[in-house]
Amino acid sequence: MISQTAEYALRAVVVLGGGNGEPLTTKAIAERTKAPLDYLSKVLQALGRAGLVDARRGIGGGYVLTRKLDDLTIKDVVDAVEPLRRITHCPLDLPQHAGRLCSLHKRLDDGIALIERLYAESTIGDLLRDSTQSTPLCETLEQISPKKATAKK
Amino acid sequence: MISQTAEYALRAVVVLGGGNGEPLTTKAIAERTKAPLDYLSKVLQALGRAGLVDARRGIGGGYVLTRKLDDLTIKDVVDAVEPLRRITHCPLDLPQHAGRLCSLHKRLDDGIALIERLYAESTIGDLLRDSTQSTPLCETLEQISPKKATAKK
Repeated sequence: MISQTAEYALRAVVVLGGGNGEPLTTKAIAERTKAPLDYLSKVLQALGRAGLVDARRGIGGGYVLTRKLDDLTIKDVVDAVEPLRRITHCPLDLPQHAGRLCSLHKRLDDGIALIERLYAESTIGDLLRDSTQSTPLCETLEQISPKKATAKK
Repeated sequence: MISQTAEYALRAVVVLGGGNGEPLTTKAIAERTKAPLDYLSKVLQALGRAGLVDARRGIGGGYVLTRKLDDLTIKDVVDAVEPLRRITHCPLDLPQHAGRLCSLHKRLDDGIALIERLYAESTIGDLLRDSTQSTPLCETLEQISPKKATAKK
């Protein structure tokens, strides 16, 4: 339903959000999100252009989130890389439908609006705190936290 | 949000549903839906395999709907050609998420479920009767009805 690009962007953001705030390199994020390195690199650049992540240069550099997790929604992330496409005009270019969609396309757009609203109401903070589900990419979060990884040995 | 195939299938079904019940040829449906003939032909065959349309052979032949308009939903049509893909297992194949999605993918799946429910509640009859919107493909419906077309001259 969402594009691969949006999927990788969301994975990257939850990995960054689930870490300890230290910058993570593209390579580290790629391993944790199971995203191809080159593809992810472009996704992170897009998130940077949208102001959702910041690239820190130098030793110990990498990407960090710029916003608090409760101020960052699924919609923000999706919009940054590949916004949901609402149906704003008649896909058949029928002149009679120029000012008003037909009932079919209105109904299809209603569906997209439902998803858009859900995404706008879902913060990354919500996802990371949701105790009714697995933690997003929890396996990879364990890799981020050296203490937990050590404890497992 | 839905595929081009599903879009064409829905257009074809509303054109058939908005007609007078006489069979319509693939060519006639292609003109009215603005869909490429070969592509539409495959879509109609898929709708036939799903039992939603019936192909009548011979002179005056063509496609007809097999169900009443109030027993035919957007979901039926979409499912016949390219069902919405719910997220049923972890896209990252994380072993910890095998039995339970993470909160990110659960939330994304919740969105798909919202759309699926809306489509299941929307019959083609609803769409054709909806007086708050334009009639689906109304321009082409006028072409189907010779009386209206004559009246306009």
